[in-house]
Amino acid sequence: MSTSTLLADLLAFFSSDRVSTATAILEQNAQDESSFPARPPDVVVWPTSTTEVSQVLAYAHQHQVPVTARGAGTSLEGQPIPLQGGIVLNFQQMNQIVAIYAEDFQARVQPGIFYKDMNRTLAGHGLFFAPDPGANASIGGMLANNAAGIRTVKYGATRDNVLALEVVLASGEIIHTGSRAVKQSSGYDLTHLFVGSEGTLGLITEATLKLAPLPEQFSAATAAFPSVAAAAQTVFDIMGSGLGPAALELLDELAVTVLNTDEGIHLSVAPHLFMEFTGPSESALQQTLATVQEICRENGGNDFRSGTGRDQRNTLWDARHRLFEIHKRYFPGQKYLIADVAVPISHFPAVVSRASQLIAELQLAASIISHAGDGNVHLTIFYPPADSQAQARAQQLNEAIVNYALELDGTSTGEHGVGIGKQKFMLPEHGPGAVALMRQLKALLDPQGILNPGKVLPLT
Amino acid sequence: MSTSTLLADLLAFFSSDRVSTATAILEQNAQDESSFPARPPDVVVWPTSTTEVSQVLAYAHQHQVPVTARGAGTSLEGQPIPLQGGIVLNFQQMNQIVAIYAEDFQARVQPGIFYKDMNRTLAGHGLFFAPDPGANASIGGMLANNAAGIRTVKYGATRDNVLALEVVLASGEIIHTGSRAVKQSSGYDLTHLFVGSEGTLGLITEATLKLAPLPEQFSAATAAFPSVAAAAQTVFDIMGSGLGPAALELLDELAVTVLNTDEGIHLSVAPHLFMEFTGPSESALQQTLATVQEICRENGGNDFRSGTGRDQRNTLWDARHRLFEIHKRYFPGQKYLIADVAVPISHFPAVVSRASQLIAELQLAASIISHAGDGNVHLTIFYPPADSQAQARAQQLNEAIVNYALELDGTSTGEHGVGIGKQKFMLPEHGPGAVALMRQLKALLDPQGILNPGKVLPLT
Repeated sequence: MSTSTLLADLLAFFSSDRVSTATAILEQNAQDESSFPARPPDVVVWPTSTTEVSQVLAYAHQHQVPVTARGAGTSLEGQPIPLQGGIVLNFQQMNQIVAIYAEDFQARVQPGIFYKDMNRTLAGHGLFFAPDPGANASIGGMLANNAAGIRTVKYGATRDNVLALEVVLASGEIIHTGSRAVKQSSGYDLTHLFVGSEGTLGLITEATLKLAPLPEQFSAATAAFPSVAAAAQTVFDIMGSGLGPAALELLDELAVTVLNTDEGIHLSVAPHLFMEFTGPSESALQQTLATVQEICRENGGNDFRSGTGRDQRNTLWDARHRLFEIHKRYFPGQKYLIADVAVPISHFPAVVSRASQLIAELQLAASIISHAGDGNVHLTIFYPPADSQAQARAQQLNEAIVNYALELDGTSTGEHGVGIGKQKFMLPEHGPGAVALMRQLKALLDPQGILNPGKVLPLT
Repeated sequence: MSTSTLLADLLAFFSSDRVSTATAILEQNAQDESSFPARPPDVVVWPTSTTEVSQVLAYAHQHQVPVTARGAGTSLEGQPIPLQGGIVLNFQQMNQIVAIYAEDFQARVQPGIFYKDMNRTLAGHGLFFAPDPGANASIGGMLANNAAGIRTVKYGATRDNVLALEVVLASGEIIHTGSRAVKQSSGYDLTHLFVGSEGTLGLITEATLKLAPLPEQFSAATAAFPSVAAAAQTVFDIMGSGLGPAALELLDELAVTVLNTDEGIHLSVAPHLFMEFTGPSESALQQTLATVQEICRENGGNDFRSGTGRDQRNTLWDARHRLFEIHKRYFPGQKYLIADVAVPISHFPAVVSRASQLIAELQLAASIISHAGDGNVHLTIFYPPADSQAQARAQQLNEAIVNYALELDGTSTGEHGVGIGKQKFMLPEHGPGAVALMRQLKALLDPQGILNPGKVLPLT
C-alpha cells in the first residue's frame, strides 16, 4: 500500500495532528537504544484511546499493514524498530493513571506512562511500582519486554507485578484478562501470555499493576573486592544467607571507573557490590548489616561502607541507575552491545569469572554490571563504529556468554527481551518443540503477521 | 472404542500390573473431593516416565480417546473426574524428586509427588515449597489448578513458584518451557499457559519449583472478635500496615465451633483471626506482634494470644490445615459445596459481611473460612444429601457470592480452579472475547479434544 493511501485512510480515524509522515518524526520512531540499524515507519500515529488502537488494528489486519507499538524507545534489543515499515503506534498520549486503588496497593494505568513519572504520583500515596529498568521506560514497554531491574531481587519482574490487562488483538477485538484479586485460578493465564510478547501477540492498552509500600527503613552498603570472582562469591553467600536484599548489584573495575566520572562518586577502583536492605526497624537493619559485613570480609571484601544517609545513598543509586548513560558519555560516539544472561545463583560466580576471562582474551572494552542477586549478568561492550573486527569480537563475547548461560540452565535474556538481538538463541534455549508452539501461538493470535513482524521468533 | 480394544492397545506400552479395568480401581479414579457425581474411566494406567505419557497421548490423540490426568484427587471442583470415560493417567508412580538444587532454592520433581512428602525431604536442606493447599495434594494437581493456601499471602501461589516445566502435548510431543534462571524474558511465557490449565492443554511431567528457606524466627497469634465484620476490618488494617504476615486466616463462629471439636483446641466461640509472622529476630517479631495486638484491639478484638511455643502453634495450624476434614467429621454423611471467591483486599470486609448475611438468610450450615490476607473467602456449605431444597440454597449462596465478587473486580475462584463447578462463571468473569481466545488456545493445543474434556471452558 502506498504511503499516501495509508495516510488518507488513517485520517479517517485520526485528526491530522495525530498522524504524521514527516521525515523527522519517522526518524524519531525508527530506533531504540540498541545499535541495530534504524528503520523508519511509513507513518506514525498517536492514539488517545483503546477504541482508536482497535480501529487501527482492524484496519491494518484487513489491509495487512505492519503495526509496531512504541513506548519510550528505551529497549535494548531493537523491539520497536519497525522492520517492515508500516504504522508505528506511538503510545505517548495514552499516558494516564486511570485509577489508584491505594488500599489495595494497585493502580490501573495506560501503557504510555513512564514508570518514573508514575512513581512520582504514587509516592504521594506511599506506594511505588517496584520493577525499575533504570532508563525511564514506559509501562507498556516494560510489560511488552517483561522488564526488571535493580529491585527485582526483592519485588519480582514486571511479569510478577501485573494482575489484569486490557488487550487489543490483531483483529481489533478488545479483550480483558485477569482481575484485581491477587489470587486467581480462573481459566487460562492470558495475562502472562501477553506480558513479554513484545507487541507481537496483541497490544496492551491498560494494565492493573501491583504496587508496593515505600519502605520506611532502608540501608545501603557498598564493599570493594580484590576480584570479580570474590565479589561474585559474596553475592552467592549473601543470597544463601536468607537476608533478602532489596538490591544486590555487582560492578567490575571498569564499571566503577566509569561510575567515578559522575558527579559526587568517589569509589576505590576495584570490583564493588552495591547492596540495599529494608527492614522493620533500625535495630533489625543494623543486625543485617553486621552479618553482611562479615560475609564480605570472609571473601576478602574491604572498604565496607554502610549506614550512609539518604542523600549519599540516593547519589550512589541514582548514578547506578544512570550507569548506562554514563558509559555512553565515557565512550563517546562508540557503538555498543549489552549481554543480558541470567543463570541460577549457584552458577553466578562461574559466569562472572568466565565473562571476566573472555573480556580479557577478546581485548574488549566491556564492563560487567550485574543484577547479581538475580543471577543476571550484563556485559556492556563498547566498540568503535568503524572497527568491524571489534564488533565481531563483541558479538563473539555475547554468543559465548549466552551459550555458557544456556549450558548452566540459564537464559539468553533475563530482562531485555528477545527483539532482534536474541532471536538466534531461541532454538538453542527452548528447543524445537517449544519454539514451534510459540510460532503456532503467533499464527493463532496474529494470522496476518501484522504485529511487530520480524521479532522474537527466530527467522526461518 | 471398546474397552477390550483399548486395554489390549495399552498393554503394548504398559506391563499388565500398570493397566487396570478392575471395577474397584475404576471407582477409585472416578471422583475427587467435590460433591460432583463420580464417573469411572474405562481404564486406569500408571505411567512411570515421560516417554510413557507421551506414548499414551500419541495413541489417544490418534484414536480420539479422552485422557484425564490424576494426582492425589484432592481437588474440589471435579477436575479429575473423567466425564467422558476413556483413560485416567494416574501419576502416583511418577513421584520422585529428580534433583534438589539447594543452593539455588530449587527442586525438580515429578508431578505425582505429594507436596507434604516432598517438603519432608526438603526440610533436610532447610527448604520448603511454600504453597500449601491443606490436603496433601500432588504437585501435578497443584500446578494444574494453580493451588495456593495459607502461606500464599507471603509466598505467592503455585503459579508464582514455578520456573520451568516439561510438558507432553496432546499429540504426544514433549516440550520444555522456562529455565532455572529466576529472571526470564525469552519468548512467550509457555510455563504460565500450562499452569492452571487443569490438564486441558497438556500434561506436566516434570516441574522446576522455587523453594523458600524455612524461616528461623516465627510467631503465631490468635485473636477473637465480636463479629466477622470486625475481624474482616482488622484483616484490611493489618494488610495496609505493611507488616507482611506469613499467614492471615479468618474463621467465623461456626468454623471455630467445628475446630474446637479437634484434639487440643480450646478457642473461645467467636470469630477469630489466626496470624503468623516471620522475622529476622525475636525482638523484631515482638515489635510486630505489639503492633498487631494494637490493631486488633482497635477493632474490638480480645483474647489476643501470641508468643505461643512451637508445639501449641503446630497444634493450631495443623488443625487449621485439617479444618475441611474436621468439618466433614462434624457433618457426617452430608454433601458440601465450597465457595472460593477472591476480591481486592479493600472489598474483603464487604464480601465477608455479605456472606455472613446470606448464610443467615438462606438458613444454611455454612462456615466462613478465609485466606483473609489474600482477600480469598471460602464458604464451606454442608447440606443433607436428600435435601434438594438445601442443595438449591447452597448453590444460590455460591452464585450470589461469586456474582458479588465479580462486581467487586474479583474472581470466581482464587485457588480451587474451574473444573466443572465454575464453568458457568467463565463468561461473566472474563467476557466473550477472552473466553473465545481460551477456546482457540484449547483448539490449537488439543485439536482432538482428548485432554480432560468437558472442563474449564463453559459448555456451549
